[in-house]
Amino acid sequence: MSSCALCEPSPQDILWQDDFCRVVLLNDADYPAYCRVELAAHIKEMTDLPPADRARTMRVVFAVEAALRETIQPDKINLASLGNKTPHVHWHVIPRFESDKHFPDSHWAAPVRDSEVQALSKDLRDQLQRVVAERVECALEG
Amino acid sequence: MSSCALCEPSPQDILWQDDFCRVVLLNDADYPAYCRVELAAHIKEMTDLPPADRARTMRVVFAVEAALRETIQPDKINLASLGNKTPHVHWHVIPRFESDKHFPDSHWAAPVRDSEVQALSKDLRDQLQRVVAERVECALEG
Repeated sequence: MSSCALCEPSPQDILWQDDFCRVVLLNDADYPAYCRVELAAHIKEMTDLPPADRARTMRVVFAVEAALRETIQPDKINLASLGNKTPHVHWHVIPRFESDKHFPDSHWAAPVRDSEVQALSKDLRDQLQRVVAERVECALEG
Repeated sequence: MSSCALCEPSPQDILWQDDFCRVVLLNDADYPAYCRVELAAHIKEMTDLPPADRARTMRVVFAVEAALRETIQPDKINLASLGNKTPHVHWHVIPRFESDKHFPDSHWAAPVRDSEVQALSKDLRDQLQRVVAERVECALEG
C-alpha cells in the first residue's frame, strides 16, 4: 500500500496529463495560478531518472512556465523541486508578482505583506488549460 | 554599468566554469555544500533561453546534484530557480539532511531546530570539485 499522496489519483484540478506526468492547478489562495508538474512514477530525485526522462520532465516544466507567462504575465516565475515531505518528484511552477504576499522572498518564507488575490476566473482557468496543453504537446513533439 | 551581482566576477569558490555558466560553492554556514549554477548571460527566465540552452543548463544542474549525492550523501536534494531578487538565471542545488536547520521545510522557511554544522574540510571540498568537474564534463559531452 502506498502512503504517498502523489501516487494516488490527484484531488487537484488536472490541466494536462499523460502516462509520464500530470500538470495540476493547485488553486492556492495566495497564488491562484500556482501549478505543479507531478511525475506518475514514485521517483525521489531527478538523478534517479534516466537522462531522457529528466529532459522530458523539464520540457513539461518549461512548457508550463511559458503557458503561465503567456496567460498570467507574472513579474517572475519561480521553479522548484524540493520533495522533503513528499519524496516523489514534483515541480512547483509559481507565477510571482511584486505585489504578492512574499515577494521578493520565496513563497515558503514569512509573508512580507497582506495581499488580496482573486481566484482565477473560469475563463482564465480554461485559457490556461488550453495554452498548457498546446505548449506541452509542442514541447514533447520537438 | 551592470547592477547585477551575477554579472560580476564571482566572490564565491568556483568549482567549475565554462563560457556558459559557473558552478559555485556558497560556503553557507548552515548548508556547507550548498552549490549554485549561475549562467554567464543576464537572462531572467529559463524560457528566455532557447531550448538547447535550457537543456544545457539542466544537464549542469543535474550533474551537480549527482556530484553532491556521490560526495555528501544527503537525505534529499532541493533544486530551485527563483530569481526574485536577482533576475539572472541561477539554480540553487542544496543537499538537505533530516537533521538540518529547516528540514523538512524549505531552507527559506523559518528554522525548525538548531543545527551544528561543520564547514567542509579541504579534502571534501576538493573531492566535490573533482566530482563536479567529472560529472559536468561527462554530461556536456553526452
